[in-house]
Amino acid sequence: MNTRKRKTPPQTPSAADYLIASRQCELMNLQYFLQMGKLVQTISNLVHGLQRERGASNVFLGSGGEKFAQERKAMVADSEQLATLFYQALSEVHGELTGHTVSSHLLNHIAAALHGLEALQSLREQVHNQALTAAEATDAYCSLIHNLITVVFEAADTVADPSIAGLLVAMVHLMNGKEYCGQERAAGSAGFSSGAFDSALTQRMMHLVEAQERCFDVFFGFADDESKGLWQALRAHEREQEIERFRQLGCSVGRYKTLDPELADSWFSLMTERMDALKEVEDAVEGSFHARCVERFAEARNSLAHQETLIASLDGQEQGPKPVLVLCETAGESGTSQAGETWSSEGVSQQFGRSIFDLVQEQSRRLQQMQDELQSAKEALEDRKTQEKAVLLLMESRGIDNDQAHRVLRKLAMDQGRKLPEVARALVSMADLLK
Amino acid sequence: MNTRKRKTPPQTPSAADYLIASRQCELMNLQYFLQMGKLVQTISNLVHGLQRERGASNVFLGSGGEKFAQERKAMVADSEQLATLFYQALSEVHGELTGHTVSSHLLNHIAAALHGLEALQSLREQVHNQALTAAEATDAYCSLIHNLITVVFEAADTVADPSIAGLLVAMVHLMNGKEYCGQERAAGSAGFSSGAFDSALTQRMMHLVEAQERCFDVFFGFADDESKGLWQALRAHEREQEIERFRQLGCSVGRYKTLDPELADSWFSLMTERMDALKEVEDAVEGSFHARCVERFAEARNSLAHQETLIASLDGQEQGPKPVLVLCETAGESGTSQAGETWSSEGVSQQFGRSIFDLVQEQSRRLQQMQDELQSAKEALEDRKTQEKAVLLLMESRGIDNDQAHRVLRKLAMDQGRKLPEVARALVSMADLLK
Repeated sequence: MNTRKRKTPPQTPSAADYLIASRQCELMNLQYFLQMGKLVQTISNLVHGLQRERGASNVFLGSGGEKFAQERKAMVADSEQLATLFYQALSEVHGELTGHTVSSHLLNHIAAALHGLEALQSLREQVHNQALTAAEATDAYCSLIHNLITVVFEAADTVADPSIAGLLVAMVHLMNGKEYCGQERAAGSAGFSSGAFDSALTQRMMHLVEAQERCFDVFFGFADDESKGLWQALRAHEREQEIERFRQLGCSVGRYKTLDPELADSWFSLMTERMDALKEVEDAVEGSFHARCVERFAEARNSLAHQETLIASLDGQEQGPKPVLVLCETAGESGTSQAGETWSSEGVSQQFGRSIFDLVQEQSRRLQQMQDELQSAKEALEDRKTQEKAVLLLMESRGIDNDQAHRVLRKLAMDQGRKLPEVARALVSMADLLK
Repeated sequence: MNTRKRKTPPQTPSAADYLIASRQCELMNLQYFLQMGKLVQTISNLVHGLQRERGASNVFLGSGGEKFAQERKAMVADSEQLATLFYQALSEVHGELTGHTVSSHLLNHIAAALHGLEALQSLREQVHNQALTAAEATDAYCSLIHNLITVVFEAADTVADPSIAGLLVAMVHLMNGKEYCGQERAAGSAGFSSGAFDSALTQRMMHLVEAQERCFDVFFGFADDESKGLWQALRAHEREQEIERFRQLGCSVGRYKTLDPELADSWFSLMTERMDALKEVEDAVEGSFHARCVERFAEARNSLAHQETLIASLDGQEQGPKPVLVLCETAGESGTSQAGETWSSEGVSQQFGRSIFDLVQEQSRRLQQMQDELQSAKEALEDRKTQEKAVLLLMESRGIDNDQAHRVLRKLAMDQGRKLPEVARALVSMADLLK
C-alpha cells in the first residue's frame, strides 16, 4: 500500500523521492475525499431528516398541536438515528480532518453545526410544548441545516481532482437548492394555512424560487449524466406544473382575498414529494461521487506503482553514469515547464537522466492541467462565498434583511445586464475600497 | 503542549472539541511555517552561493580559464556546504511536507530543484573542462536557481496567517529580484567583456532591470520596517548611481562602437557588491519572518490555552441546564456569522450556551478577517503565476522567446494604461475562451 505517509525522511533527498511524494500526496487527497464522501452522505441524510422534522413541526405548531403529532415523533426518532450516523462518520474522519494545517475554517464550521445539534433537544421540547411559533421553529431548523450544508461547501474547497471537485460542487448546490425548496414549502404553508400572502411573503416565495433555480443551474452544470437524467425526469413530472399553479395562486391572491386553508395540506404534500424526489437525485450524485473517488483512487494508485517501478529501474541503470546536465531556455525564468527543452548531450548519459527529468516535467504538466480544470469548480464555490459576503454587506450598510439584500443584488444584476456573481464580486471589491 | 494532533476522536463529537481543533489547526499551520522558515533560509543561502558560483564560472569561462579558477573552487566548496544544509532542512521538514494532502505541487517543485542539484556535479565538470560556453553555463545555473525560488513561492501558498504571509511574499520577491540582478550581472559581463551590446543584449538588460524593479516594488509593499530601512540605505548608496552609469554606457554604445573590456571587471565587482547587499536585506526579512512566526506561534498557543480553560469552565457549568436554542435571522441562509443575533430566552439557560456559541462566532469572525487580510498577499503570489502563464502563452502562440514575451506584455500594459498583472490576467482569461 503506497498511501502511507513516509514519516522517515530519505537519507539524502532525491528528485525521485519527491516525485513519488508528490504522487502520494495526490493519492492521499483522493483517500481523504473517499472518507469525506461518507461524511457528506451522512450530512445529506441528516439534512433530509431535519427538513422532514421541520415540516412536521411546522404543521404541528400551525395546527395548535392537532396535526402530525405522531408523525413528528417518528421523524424526530429518525433524525436522532441520522445524527448518530453523522457523529460516527465524523469520528471516523476525525484524524484526517485535524491532521491538516489548512482546515481551521472547516473545523470551525463543524463546531457551529455541532452546536446547533446540541441545541436540538431543547428546540424539540419547545416545539412539543408549543412554546414557540412555527416561524421561530423554522428559523432555528434553517440555521442548523445551513450550518450543516456549509460544512460540505468548506470540505469541497480542498479537492485536488477536477472530476471529483465537479461532482461535489453539483452535490452541494443540489443540497442548497433542496433546502431553498424546503424553505419555500414552509413559507407557502404559512401563506396557504393563513389563507393569504402579504407582499413580504410573496417576495420571499419569489426569492426562494429564484435561489433554487440558481442552485439547480450550477448543479446541472457539474452533474454526471445519470443524475442529470433523474433531474430531467423530476422536472418533466406533472407535479412540477401543479406546484407552479400553487405558486401562481399564492402570489396572485394578495393580502385581502382569502384562499381555502385546505390548500395548505395539498401544497405541503406536493412539496414534500418534490423534496423526496430531489433527495433521490442527491443520492444519485452521491453515488457517482463515491464511484468516481474509488475509480480515481485506483487509477492514482496504479499510476504511482507504475512510477515507482519505472524509477526503480532508472535508479538501477543510473548507478553508472552521473545524472544529466539540464540546460534550459535562454532566460531561465519563465516556469519549470520550459526547462529541459534544450539538452546538452556532452559527456553525460542523456537517456536515463532525461527519463527521470521527463517524469518530473510530466507531473508538472499534469498538476497544472488539473489546476486549470479545477478552475470552474473553484469559481462556483467562490461565487457562493462572494454572494454571501455581498448580501451581508448590503444587510449591514442598508439595515435591510436577507431577502431584501438578495433582491437588491438581483435587481442590480438585471439593471446592468450582468450575472449575479459578477455583480456580487464588484460590490465586495468596491466595499473593500471604501472601507 | 497543545500542538499535538488529536488522533483519538472524541466519543461524541462536541462543538467545543471542534472549536479547539480549529484553533489547534491554526497553531499547526504556524508551527509548519516555523519549520518551513528554516528551509526557506537554507534556500536563500544556497541560491546566493549558486549565484556567486555562476558569476565566477562565467568569468572563468569568459577568460578562457585564466581568471577566477581558485575563487571558483572555493565557491563550489561553499555551495556544496550550503546544499548539504538545504538537504538537512528538507529532511527535518519532510514529515510535515508529505503529511499534507494539498502539497503535490510543492513536492513536485522540490523534485525539480533536487534534480537540478543532482546534475550540478556534471555541470561543474563541464565548466572545469571548459566544455561549454559562459552563456550555456549561465542558463543551467538560472534554471536550477529558478526551481529553488519556485519552491519558496509554492510554500508561501499555504500560509494562513496574514502577517506571516506578507513577510514571505516580501522575501520571495526580494529573492526573485536579486536573481534578476544576478542575470543582469551575467548579461552585462557578456557585453562589457566583448566590448559591445547588440540590440538583443540591450533589450535583455532593460527587461532585467524592469523585472527587478517590479519584484522590489512588491517586496517593499510587504516588508517590515527594518528591512525597508536597509533597502532604502542600499538604494541611497553611491554604488547605485555607478551601476546606473554602466547601464547607460552599455545600452547606448550599440553594436559598432566598442568599450574598454576592462570595464567588465568593474561591472562585475559593482554588481557582486550589490547582490551581497541585497542578501543582507534578504537576511533581515528572513529574520523578521522567523521572529514573527515565533511571536504568532506563542500568541496562538496562549490563546488556545485560554480557550481550553474557558471551555472547560463552561463545560462544568453546563452539567445542569441544557444547551441553549439558537434562533437565527429570518431567512437562515446568509452565512453563519448572522446566526445567533436573535436569541430565544424561553425555558433555557441562555448565559452558558451563549458563551460557547460566542466562541464559535468569534472564531468565525477571526478566520474571516484573517482571510480578508490574506487577500493582498495571495494576490501578489497569484499575479506572479498569471504573468508566467501569460508569458508562456505568448511564447507558444507567437513563437517568441521569454524576453520578447515579457516585452509584448509590458507594451500592452503601457498602451492600455493598465497594470501588468491586469493585462496578464486578461490575456490568460481570453486564451481560456479561445481554446
